[in-house]
Amino acid sequence: MKKYCFGIDVGGTTIKCGLFDTEGNVLDKWELKTRVEENGSHILPDVADSILGKIDERKIKKSEVVGIGIGIPGPVDNRGEVPVAVNIHWGHVQIIEEMERLTGITTHAGNDANVAALGELWKGGGAGYHSLIMVTLGTGVGGGIIVNDKIIGGTHGAGGEIGHAHVEDAITEPCNCGNCGCLEQVASATGIARLAREELAASDEPSLLRSGEVSARTVFDAVKAGDALACRVAERFGKYLGKALSVFACVTDPEVFVIGGGVSKAGPVLLDYIQKYYRQYAFTACKDAVFALATLGNDAGIYGAARMVL
Amino acid sequence: MKKYCFGIDVGGTTIKCGLFDTEGNVLDKWELKTRVEENGSHILPDVADSILGKIDERKIKKSEVVGIGIGIPGPVDNRGEVPVAVNIHWGHVQIIEEMERLTGITTHAGNDANVAALGELWKGGGAGYHSLIMVTLGTGVGGGIIVNDKIIGGTHGAGGEIGHAHVEDAITEPCNCGNCGCLEQVASATGIARLAREELAASDEPSLLRSGEVSARTVFDAVKAGDALACRVAERFGKYLGKALSVFACVTDPEVFVIGGGVSKAGPVLLDYIQKYYRQYAFTACKDAVFALATLGNDAGIYGAARMVL
Repeated sequence: MKKYCFGIDVGGTTIKCGLFDTEGNVLDKWELKTRVEENGSHILPDVADSILGKIDERKIKKSEVVGIGIGIPGPVDNRGEVPVAVNIHWGHVQIIEEMERLTGITTHAGNDANVAALGELWKGGGAGYHSLIMVTLGTGVGGGIIVNDKIIGGTHGAGGEIGHAHVEDAITEPCNCGNCGCLEQVASATGIARLAREELAASDEPSLLRSGEVSARTVFDAVKAGDALACRVAERFGKYLGKALSVFACVTDPEVFVIGGGVSKAGPVLLDYIQKYYRQYAFTACKDAVFALATLGNDAGIYGAARMVL
Repeated sequence: MKKYCFGIDVGGTTIKCGLFDTEGNVLDKWELKTRVEENGSHILPDVADSILGKIDERKIKKSEVVGIGIGIPGPVDNRGEVPVAVNIHWGHVQIIEEMERLTGITTHAGNDANVAALGELWKGGGAGYHSLIMVTLGTGVGGGIIVNDKIIGGTHGAGGEIGHAHVEDAITEPCNCGNCGCLEQVASATGIARLAREELAASDEPSLLRSGEVSARTVFDAVKAGDALACRVAERFGKYLGKALSVFACVTDPEVFVIGGGVSKAGPVLLDYIQKYYRQYAFTACKDAVFALATLGNDAGIYGAARMVL
């Protein structure tokens, strides 16, 4: 009888690994270093060795393992092929084929942001729902779209690449993607700091942000302390993101938006600013979508990877 | 052996009906008047009588019919229930349950715009593809989203309601939906006429549009005649729509955009204006999405309805 599965989340510096039972309880968690040298060619063999080692250590029979799920920081097509994944120095890699050859265990693969979205839907902020838009506010803005419990990976692996939705014509500085005016440029941690620097430069108004570091964290700390300038920054952030989410809602009409990533540590106040503008701009039928904070943190990837298998 | 199915497209004035073989060839097409009186309570019985009559007329056995597909001008949930459909005077109707009771034939139901999108994917401008965003430019702007050959209907039946994506803060006149600045207000036939009237009012520049009717048709006729003012209107339309489509592409990353509705009679020039801005704003991976004109016209609904069954 099948009892176990593995959820693997490959990042640029660390590979997170989880052993799960088929109910989705995590039985063991560990990490590997991501060896990006030699075009990242050690990554899948390292993962395979670690999985086979864990199977030995726990005296699990290979026949008891349903499969391996693996999230990759790059586009993954329907056949589990990655054309390129710059953060782990990969060119074209056939993940599923290679992992199955290395381990003899059925493998499923997906983009890391999409897989994390599936994790949050299963066991995190979106638990109990079936259609979700996940927004990860970190250095960039990532996303994942789930409809009826299925990841929308996209034709070019760009499903859920919401950080690169165009939201502002006035921005002339290029985004990392080469375009100008992307959501990522105004709603990521970096984007929020940028909005704060603009507000600070526009006047001499006193603000807690004038002393010390200007970051998404210090902006929301200042918001909580009632700082007027920081609140204006939060309004601008909320308007950009809330409006963009209202546009995405016209496409897939999700039950729930889950907001994660480092910026989400600001807590419920963050949702207040986003929802205020979402409700203003959203199509009537979509206005009552639920907003929730992500709850799985860095474990969302291993949960989602396991969910792909089960 | 199952050989036939019916595709039904319920509109506000006419009900279009098609008898198909299971290869998707249309064997017969006919129309019924939509009787909206008495809260549209005659509509499903009229459709059922017509289908049963056709089965008799053609000496088809009921056991040879795979099913009935029906498109409705309103939101349809996963169980085939319509909460309300104003154009046909419906309150809450359980379409599937009622049609199956009336005909004894398995029934599938969907929103008319989504069903038309499925028709264009199957036999029209999107034939050969599996993931599509359909844009219907008529009096309003409708849409339909297909991913891996499946309609994205949405939690509240608002999947593909792209006409109500917010695209312009400067518009203060309300849209039919109650919000301001919807895509429909600048990219529908009505919206294009509105942009043209704005351009005409802004200067005394000579234009073909200064004599006679100002409509989406006369605007694109003038564009083809090289009218500078009309070309500016087309640029504004193309920028609004192309940019909006680039944002939608970040969500589902489709293979193809199919543009239909009355405005699409302008032909390939319409696609030129849309694609120019789409390619400018789209995320790198999505830039090469295909653009095509719809080809099924008013028959897209019956084709899509039949496709739901097969």
